[in-house]
Amino acid sequence: NIGPEASYPVMEGKALIFKFLGGVDAVPLPIRAKDADDFIETVKKLEPAFGGINLEDIESPKCFYILERLRKEMNIPVWHDDQQGTATATLAGLINALKIVGKKISDITISMIGAGASNIATYNLLVKYGAKPKNIILVDTKGILHAEREDLDKLMFENPWKYKIAIESNGELRKGGIKEAIVGTDVVIAASRPGPGIIKKEWVAMMNKDPIVFALANPVPEIWPWEAKEAGARVVATGRSDLPNQINNSLAFPSVFRGALDVRARTVTDEMAIAAAEALAKHAEEKGISEDYIIPTMEEFEVYIKTAVAVAEKAIEQGVARIKRSRSELEETASTIIRNVRLKYETLVKNGFIKDIVQL
Amino acid sequence: NIGPEASYPVMEGKALIFKFLGGVDAVPLPIRAKDADDFIETVKKLEPAFGGINLEDIESPKCFYILERLRKEMNIPVWHDDQQGTATATLAGLINALKIVGKKISDITISMIGAGASNIATYNLLVKYGAKPKNIILVDTKGILHAEREDLDKLMFENPWKYKIAIESNGELRKGGIKEAIVGTDVVIAASRPGPGIIKKEWVAMMNKDPIVFALANPVPEIWPWEAKEAGARVVATGRSDLPNQINNSLAFPSVFRGALDVRARTVTDEMAIAAAEALAKHAEEKGISEDYIIPTMEEFEVYIKTAVAVAEKAIEQGVARIKRSRSELEETASTIIRNVRLKYETLVKNGFIKDIVQL
Repeated sequence: NIGPEASYPVMEGKALIFKFLGGVDAVPLPIRAKDADDFIETVKKLEPAFGGINLEDIESPKCFYILERLRKEMNIPVWHDDQQGTATATLAGLINALKIVGKKISDITISMIGAGASNIATYNLLVKYGAKPKNIILVDTKGILHAEREDLDKLMFENPWKYKIAIESNGELRKGGIKEAIVGTDVVIAASRPGPGIIKKEWVAMMNKDPIVFALANPVPEIWPWEAKEAGARVVATGRSDLPNQINNSLAFPSVFRGALDVRARTVTDEMAIAAAEALAKHAEEKGISEDYIIPTMEEFEVYIKTAVAVAEKAIEQGVARIKRSRSELEETASTIIRNVRLKYETLVKNGFIKDIVQL
Repeated sequence: NIGPEASYPVMEGKALIFKFLGGVDAVPLPIRAKDADDFIETVKKLEPAFGGINLEDIESPKCFYILERLRKEMNIPVWHDDQQGTATATLAGLINALKIVGKKISDITISMIGAGASNIATYNLLVKYGAKPKNIILVDTKGILHAEREDLDKLMFENPWKYKIAIESNGELRKGGIKEAIVGTDVVIAASRPGPGIIKKEWVAMMNKDPIVFALANPVPEIWPWEAKEAGARVVATGRSDLPNQINNSLAFPSVFRGALDVRARTVTDEMAIAAAEALAKHAEEKGISEDYIIPTMEEFEVYIKTAVAVAEKAIEQGVARIKRSRSELEETASTIIRNVRLKYETLVKNGFIKDIVQL
């Protein structure tokens, strides 16, 4: 929430990624709204202008309220990338990480460090994917969320999304801080604040066999991958492009929108996000997963086409698509659009109109 | 006012013209607003997103209220093309038409047929340019506007813009219909409804020496040019691209915005619109004006650069520019941007990415 004018450059960069990776024409549209309801009403008035809306730069917990209402009240996809994009990419990585350690989503215990937009959305998506709420332990700035926390009444009013998690998660009523949350879990997913040192080596060492560590804070992960590995972590993912296993929203949002737009979807359901995560995971699996390759990189551009098709097919299956297309038609559409952007980019670079920022 | 969804294609076409002729990146943004005030508040909330706003598809008299408030309350240019674009192009044509017949704006009598968005804006711009209100006679669907019309009180509340004209124009208190308005005037500017036959040959024959006839209704002008000529008209202009002297908004809005954006103007003043009209007229004059060439055609692309520079210079002169640039810098900027669009277009056509709709 850095103010509408200041958010422009970030949104402009995102629009570029939308176009380059998904062939999606996006327009930065900072809005000077008084409050959440005013913002919601303004966005709704713009519905005739767009095939979909990607929300940016909205603080938690306002973002939950806004996304929830807009998804309900609009007839085009509304996506909050800080929530759904991160959740989708995280799930994609986790699917393959679990394959490597040979564990099942329904059996594992998960500690989650940070209870902001991304981890709350990730929690919800993991549960939808089969993780058991009682096996998940969330930590916010005040410590582990549990059903006996003193601030529970306050939470109910101020952040009902977090409240719900406090009630239903953490079946063993674990209490304490980050350390107490991590100990004895199979997976830790941290999306809290820049490290290192937020997660200590000793704590990773106290996790279950073959720990999976997702330390997603940028620019510095909550624990450096080599530290986590030294402490016994089997699979480590971060948010950084210069380290293996980057959990990157850009893998998800361009193709989620490509797929949704190609069938004129009325919404992006959680199941469509899961379909995207599965398509991302499958692509990596087909190439051959390992401890250092659980998720595709941004450069594997075939994955955007596959993911778009998976999202579109799920939309059709769930009855939220306005038009129906066969898989081969969907592949043809997404692939033509996405390839065309690349070719156009190359042509414009070759003719000196734009700089080659991507070095294809 | 055809509804927000239905207006999309028109706005998309306009965005294309913005880009192609002015190098201006425009986005169609139909808004589902409850009423004029709701529309105004919504547009104001989008201020951080844009360098300028071009209003489309707003009915009269709502458009006067909306434009007036937005120009006053926003810190970026707000332009209603149906008003200002038509007024600017009309003034450009009239400047040269008057040169051909050797008359001065301050001396002439003008009849104006139609009192909608464009003619009311044209009236105001002509007055600002030096035409005498008392020498102008406007006709609406109920006949000539004059200070003794029965519906004057109603007008004051429902359309104060037209009311003001009824009071101050038509010094001789002429009454009647289109015929009575036209007789004995030097210029007729019609922007009413498709002809032919709205203006009769006999009426043109009763105008002053060397009549100037602007019959701007589309697709068929209020009187065909050959009929007007047979009746003695010296200069005839229409809104049609297949006839000489096309009064075309597209000559104005792309370069008005180019010029305004190049100096980050806070607004487009009437004086900037006049500067655009004068630049258009001057370009044609330098090429050599005649009865059949009073205004440049859309294909003369140098004119967009000249007009943009004139608009930008006027903005600087009037203190509404956020940045100041010399004339040569302005020429360099506008010409680089506009030429670049053409070159990019040619490159994309040559490489098969887009169809050559323009046949450069």
